[in-house]
Amino acid sequence: MHPFSIKAEFKLGFLGGGQLARMSAYQAYRFGIQTAVYRSGSTPEPMDFVSPFISIGAFADEKKLIDFAKSCDVVTLENEFLESDLLKHIRDKSGTPIYPSPETFELIENKWIEKETFRKARIPVTPYRFIKNNTDIESFGNAFGWPFVLKSSKGGYDGYGNATAYDIESALDGFGKLGGNSGRDILAEAFVPFEKELAVMVARSKSEVIAYPCVESIQQGHICKTIMAPAQIDEQLQKKAQEIALKAVEIIDGIGVFAFEFFLTKSGDIILNETAPRPHNSGHYSIEGCITSQFENHIRAVCGMPLGKTTLRKPVAVMENILGTHQRKSVSEHVFNSLATIDAHLHLYGKLDSKSGRKMGHLTVLGNNATTTLKLAKKLGNEIIV
Amino acid sequence: MHPFSIKAEFKLGFLGGGQLARMSAYQAYRFGIQTAVYRSGSTPEPMDFVSPFISIGAFADEKKLIDFAKSCDVVTLENEFLESDLLKHIRDKSGTPIYPSPETFELIENKWIEKETFRKARIPVTPYRFIKNNTDIESFGNAFGWPFVLKSSKGGYDGYGNATAYDIESALDGFGKLGGNSGRDILAEAFVPFEKELAVMVARSKSEVIAYPCVESIQQGHICKTIMAPAQIDEQLQKKAQEIALKAVEIIDGIGVFAFEFFLTKSGDIILNETAPRPHNSGHYSIEGCITSQFENHIRAVCGMPLGKTTLRKPVAVMENILGTHQRKSVSEHVFNSLATIDAHLHLYGKLDSKSGRKMGHLTVLGNNATTTLKLAKKLGNEIIV
Repeated sequence: MHPFSIKAEFKLGFLGGGQLARMSAYQAYRFGIQTAVYRSGSTPEPMDFVSPFISIGAFADEKKLIDFAKSCDVVTLENEFLESDLLKHIRDKSGTPIYPSPETFELIENKWIEKETFRKARIPVTPYRFIKNNTDIESFGNAFGWPFVLKSSKGGYDGYGNATAYDIESALDGFGKLGGNSGRDILAEAFVPFEKELAVMVARSKSEVIAYPCVESIQQGHICKTIMAPAQIDEQLQKKAQEIALKAVEIIDGIGVFAFEFFLTKSGDIILNETAPRPHNSGHYSIEGCITSQFENHIRAVCGMPLGKTTLRKPVAVMENILGTHQRKSVSEHVFNSLATIDAHLHLYGKLDSKSGRKMGHLTVLGNNATTTLKLAKKLGNEIIV
Repeated sequence: MHPFSIKAEFKLGFLGGGQLARMSAYQAYRFGIQTAVYRSGSTPEPMDFVSPFISIGAFADEKKLIDFAKSCDVVTLENEFLESDLLKHIRDKSGTPIYPSPETFELIENKWIEKETFRKARIPVTPYRFIKNNTDIESFGNAFGWPFVLKSSKGGYDGYGNATAYDIESALDGFGKLGGNSGRDILAEAFVPFEKELAVMVARSKSEVIAYPCVESIQQGHICKTIMAPAQIDEQLQKKAQEIALKAVEIIDGIGVFAFEFFLTKSGDIILNETAPRPHNSGHYSIEGCITSQFENHIRAVCGMPLGKTTLRKPVAVMENILGTHQRKSVSEHVFNSLATIDAHLHLYGKLDSKSGRKMGHLTVLGNNATTTLKLAKKLGNEIIV
């Protein structure tokens, strides 16, 4: 028998206390694992209501971060906003492992290094160039076509940190807004006319790696609104996306759960667009949809457990984000039908305040037929006002 | 559309902080609901590590209990050790609803009243008599056969509060041990030679009621060790047990999740043995085994939500309890195979100390074949040392 064991009072620390940490925590709990949270800010976050160990401090407060890490057996992150140098420092001074590792973050925290890393490993990425000035903008537009996308090389998330360059004028405007004039590294990326946006979650531990089904992401105003699992594309294409994701996670030596987002082009090419080193919105469907959810496999991977199978429980899972409609104290209204429908699974994140576009919860519907399940999920999701 | 809504900061209070509250809390959380716990004692309980709102006090401290109830939107219980009079008092003084209601507890907290209530409703129960003395013991033994069971009319749980009467001498001994000589009400129950022990969970809200599959309970030293879902008996018998359970929950006007434990006799009779007004060990299999777990439906029922479907996700679910082997600081050893096996689902309750027979966790295995799934679950369960 393998000697693997879980000790009482094993404590997993989260840097960040949002819904991703919260949904991960439920899975830590079911293994008897305790959670602790380090978060900034004065406003309560979703984790505040599900863990007794909340530390509030600045993400620049190295001493406090090191003390926090010392109080944990393993530390993980629910976002990618911390510098790899800081993470290394925390890990080395506390002696507590951090997964995904700072070395992994180093490869993906800067979009330029990320693109270079993947390109050199022959993973298809969108055409990109480093942009320093007017001339670079013009030559990129001329080479790869207008419009294209300008990205700040750090800090992008759901369309924030991006600007569309329709022409020289809007490009210069975007360059400025993204901090290009004040020394921030700016990247140009060709706009890829895509058929579909795809995503593959991958879980990887020190000894195992496993891909989730290839899903289809339907965006609304740069924010993921709907996930269809599996993607309604040829099985060979699904498999190809999974293979790229498995290769990509190896290249960056990722430990934990990772999201890889792709463009599927009209010509059937699959191009890596974004990498997220954490459980991701495009994997929420896996809570009920798969034998092992992305959150459970994240806990397993960062705590050194064997990984669980990712097979779908039913032929189709559709996840619909529940976004805030307007600024107010949150009330989840008209959730009756979502709760009463067979194999519809409502999740609310416990956020106290709602605002337009804020991710307040999600709804997953399992079914046998893609069209009817999608229709049902959209109908139920559209009813809810948060 | 139905106007049902869930407000931010809705808080569900638990009286008792053990694993049943903990597993219920995970489900409250996924609806954005907050939990609070009132518990006694100085030793940490499983809920201490998953909720920031822990109140420690005596269960006799009415004022503190009322204050606790006032801080909650709904209160529920994870055990049946509180007197219905006290619960009524807490509810009436706090204005906070308690589910299951104190009126339900009134009907089942005393085994005599419980038996009478069910018998009058023509629900089959084991032959029983109120025992006051020597003569009652002798006449019961002569009428219904030796051995029989003596039960304290309050406070029974997994064989505690029970004594087997083999003859007059052991009966008098048991009568004394159970408190019969110091005024405690004692009940005699005929020992029913059973083929199998069955159990049915039922979820009931103010407007709906739904039964879980009829399962088979395999005991070891009066403690449930294994649950096989569904019970390996004729479907008509399963249906009969479900019907009795549905009738029983109506009779006691139960709101929440209830366990009904039955004896199946050689002649095919189904006799109600025990009632538990809460999520129950015999329903843990439903976490992965059913579309909606007993914990989720408990939350739904006591918070006034529509109930979820209880259909099994796979043909067979086997739950194996993980019991402590000896007194020590808990370490869950040899869990590797349980974690690595497809559709095996390990749950540990986060208890800091292990002792012989203590419920430390459980393991559910889903499968297609009863024999092989049972064998696999027992093999995996037997490997684990906590």
